[in-house]
Amino acid sequence: MPDPLARPAFWLRDNCPCAECRDPRSGQKLFQITDLPEELAVAASTGVDGLLEVLWSDGHRSRYPADLLAEPGTPAEQDAGDLRTERGKRLWRAADFAAGIPEAGWEAYLADPAERAAVLRAVQHLGFAVLRGVPAEPGRVLEVAESFGFVRRTNYGDLFDVRVEPDPNNLAFTSAAIAPHTDNPYRDPVPTLQLLHCLENAAEGGDSALVDGFRAADLLRTEAPEDFAVLTRTLVPFVFRDRGTELRADRPLIGTDPLGRIREVRFNNRSIGRLRLPDAELERFYAAYRRFAAITLRPGLQLAFRLEPGDCVVFDNTRLMHARTAFERTGGRHLQGCYADLDGLAATLAVLDRQSDALDRLQELFEGEGAGEYLGEQVTQAEHMLQAAALARQAGACDELVAAALLHDVGHFFDKHSTEVVTGRQLMQGQDNRHSDTGADWLAQWFGPGVTEPVRLHVAAKRYLCTVEPAYRAALSEASEYTLLVQGGPFTAEQAAAFAELPGAADAVAVRRWDDEAKDPAAEVPGFAAYRPLLAALMARA
Amino acid sequence: MPDPLARPAFWLRDNCPCAECRDPRSGQKLFQITDLPEELAVAASTGVDGLLEVLWSDGHRSRYPADLLAEPGTPAEQDAGDLRTERGKRLWRAADFAAGIPEAGWEAYLADPAERAAVLRAVQHLGFAVLRGVPAEPGRVLEVAESFGFVRRTNYGDLFDVRVEPDPNNLAFTSAAIAPHTDNPYRDPVPTLQLLHCLENAAEGGDSALVDGFRAADLLRTEAPEDFAVLTRTLVPFVFRDRGTELRADRPLIGTDPLGRIREVRFNNRSIGRLRLPDAELERFYAAYRRFAAITLRPGLQLAFRLEPGDCVVFDNTRLMHARTAFERTGGRHLQGCYADLDGLAATLAVLDRQSDALDRLQELFEGEGAGEYLGEQVTQAEHMLQAAALARQAGACDELVAAALLHDVGHFFDKHSTEVVTGRQLMQGQDNRHSDTGADWLAQWFGPGVTEPVRLHVAAKRYLCTVEPAYRAALSEASEYTLLVQGGPFTAEQAAAFAELPGAADAVAVRRWDDEAKDPAAEVPGFAAYRPLLAALMARA
Repeated sequence: MPDPLARPAFWLRDNCPCAECRDPRSGQKLFQITDLPEELAVAASTGVDGLLEVLWSDGHRSRYPADLLAEPGTPAEQDAGDLRTERGKRLWRAADFAAGIPEAGWEAYLADPAERAAVLRAVQHLGFAVLRGVPAEPGRVLEVAESFGFVRRTNYGDLFDVRVEPDPNNLAFTSAAIAPHTDNPYRDPVPTLQLLHCLENAAEGGDSALVDGFRAADLLRTEAPEDFAVLTRTLVPFVFRDRGTELRADRPLIGTDPLGRIREVRFNNRSIGRLRLPDAELERFYAAYRRFAAITLRPGLQLAFRLEPGDCVVFDNTRLMHARTAFERTGGRHLQGCYADLDGLAATLAVLDRQSDALDRLQELFEGEGAGEYLGEQVTQAEHMLQAAALARQAGACDELVAAALLHDVGHFFDKHSTEVVTGRQLMQGQDNRHSDTGADWLAQWFGPGVTEPVRLHVAAKRYLCTVEPAYRAALSEASEYTLLVQGGPFTAEQAAAFAELPGAADAVAVRRWDDEAKDPAAEVPGFAAYRPLLAALMARA
Repeated sequence: MPDPLARPAFWLRDNCPCAECRDPRSGQKLFQITDLPEELAVAASTGVDGLLEVLWSDGHRSRYPADLLAEPGTPAEQDAGDLRTERGKRLWRAADFAAGIPEAGWEAYLADPAERAAVLRAVQHLGFAVLRGVPAEPGRVLEVAESFGFVRRTNYGDLFDVRVEPDPNNLAFTSAAIAPHTDNPYRDPVPTLQLLHCLENAAEGGDSALVDGFRAADLLRTEAPEDFAVLTRTLVPFVFRDRGTELRADRPLIGTDPLGRIREVRFNNRSIGRLRLPDAELERFYAAYRRFAAITLRPGLQLAFRLEPGDCVVFDNTRLMHARTAFERTGGRHLQGCYADLDGLAATLAVLDRQSDALDRLQELFEGEGAGEYLGEQVTQAEHMLQAAALARQAGACDELVAAALLHDVGHFFDKHSTEVVTGRQLMQGQDNRHSDTGADWLAQWFGPGVTEPVRLHVAAKRYLCTVEPAYRAALSEASEYTLLVQGGPFTAEQAAAFAELPGAADAVAVRRWDDEAKDPAAEVPGFAAYRPLLAALMARA
């Protein structure tokens, strides 16, 4: 048990997990740092059930899991959360994709959370991924963006057409070659993601290329550290103007975080305005800019490919530069593009990962803990829940109700391991929740009320049925009759009437009946893995 | 005339304004910096008509206006373009608004471009403005955002309701007091603007306050420079998580640009996650954080006000912190909010300023240059154009056509001052455009084809009418008959038929007829100022 007196007092108190300090639902802090007394100190501390309890000089009590108090690890662990700098990326050259680029089919991406996560992780980690088979129809690019985030509207609209325009306000809308660049550098905030969806590409030429701008900046830092430094500190005016807009952002070509790590590349020769600096600084800037530009053109850095109709490339516009070769105006070439942001993508990926972790954890529980004895019955806990789910399926129940049947006793797992898995609220309030509440609260992290409420009410449903159906009680197993009394016995008439009014009461009664039947030592039913797609789909919908 | 040999060669060449180097329409550069030879140098230079002509070692010729070559001025001039740092702001304390806060009525804001610009400039410069009388109806806040920019959608939706929610995922949706903070610090890019529109505020309490976060940071820098430095370099994990999202951004509380100027404040105690740093750094961070937090709470910094139904406050979420007092849950309090971005607002303001400058310039021309002789006629140029506009109005012409009549000869002004005002394209291509093209091209910066095309074609319309209406030619004034011949004489039958097919041909004929009539030395007609609202409205629509 670490000594809390050795850690900084304000840090420790700021991380108090109790329900008075931190909203149990959102995790948001409920106090201001200025609310704490100037002379805050630990008055006493004791270890209790693997938790460290601290009594503060102002009378507040905190209980901390041991891992919270541990010393920080290596610098890599310290900033593991910041995935936006070079530290969170895998930098690449074209040859790294000799075996293929990160890609997935659109249908598989939509159907399979693991495929979806892999695509989004590639964008986060490598800077791009290609979806194949996105229907080559106008407007579909917005659907791709909305599958993981929010479209960022700009002066070019929600989406823009990349094709030869009669009166173009941007070189993108001509047939000219375009060297590697990032888009919209004159915007601040710059759109951090770009999508380009190919509707038609029958033209001679018009091939695409991507360059890892972080890799290019990294090479510049290695080959010419002083040039790298110049580009991180020189504010470059990026400008764009047409009749309807006039944009300007003054940002460096290479943006670094306060620790000096590469975090953003803005590179677009077309929109660099006039720098106003003393001549010596202009000389230094232009030398560094030319060196950096030359690096981005090295063939080894340029990943060339051709977008075919239905391909949609999604890429990090703060890192990857994109380019295209010139094309013949006679053949048709038509892309549609839109912008979005990395934070929305990262959130979607984090939620997918969290859901996948939760399913892994459930599977572990079904296959490990759940294989244990089920209070006095002839089936294990896991067998019991799997049988309940199978009965729900046989009865033609909807997906939510099958999931509720499958997971109705999941709280039993957590009650036994309360210091490990129960929610912060229950832990910190010292509540000894009954298993239906424990389970429903845990499930509410992932599922909507269609799943959680039947789970929450399935114990009450038994007390209800014992009141309204005398035959139901008579048929209870011995163990079940015992737990009925522990749980408070049959409802009074008023209690039963109130129960029947609750949302989810009818579903809870249905779960209860499958619960009662699901105790057949001879039954053969599908295992947990069979329910993962159903559970994943419900999580995605919640 | 400055010596171009004294300025950095690559900088000078990168700013070559010729049509080969720079797209005349978008101003985008058409070459890569890497296209220029390593040994680029000026081979010869001469002054021509106030322009400096440079012959380059690679054979390219550039012509520069003298001001482009001038030495850069003070540092303030050098970065005048970057309005996002403290340099572009007026920092304030509450007492600075003793005489009132920046505000405008919604109807006046919509109707008057000057009022609109004043509101947007207040947001840019002071960080906020309040619109009064925005109809207190759901969804109207989106209309306010769209009046100057683009709504930024987040996990809270396009808009969010700030009122007491039964099951809040954020403290904003409770009745609790909320200390000064910026919103969505866990987003990156953070929404840079926030709007809050009051629909109802009948509750006891629930008052609002704003704090200038740049001023607070500036005070910290003055009072405790080392604490300021700690907050600019410590990456703080901001986190938010609910069932549908999981966001994290690692950013400093005070963001500075590469020159060390305050550029962004992120401050939200509710969502600061657990910092993982060595203890000595945690101690320093918490001391600095507490000092900064205490500054934001100083009464002198808190601008308190109460939002009444119909008020909509628009504020810079990278600078201003907002707060609210607790309120009684019994009274109704309902705000709707949304996010948007500063770049869109700045673009709208720049376009409004540009349009206002153009109208000023036109007014100057009408009142100065235009008061001069009109080739052999008994009215001045300005009188002639004002009479044409008055005739168009009398004829019940639409606004576009009135504007076209008013501005049909505006090219005459520019032909005389070609080095000063004609567009870069004409200047650099050495074209001697005829006045109808010159005028139409200049107008195309501000107006749509409904205005520009009749102007462009009004000379051709004369040649057309002389062909199809013999009586028309017979009635021409002596001066007009002379210019007809200079302009190429009547059209052939084919030319006339082709003209009649052009979009805007009929409108050009109408303008032509007013043009011909508008030569009455005795006429009394409204002056230019009478047309400003009409012109401003057409510019806003274009």
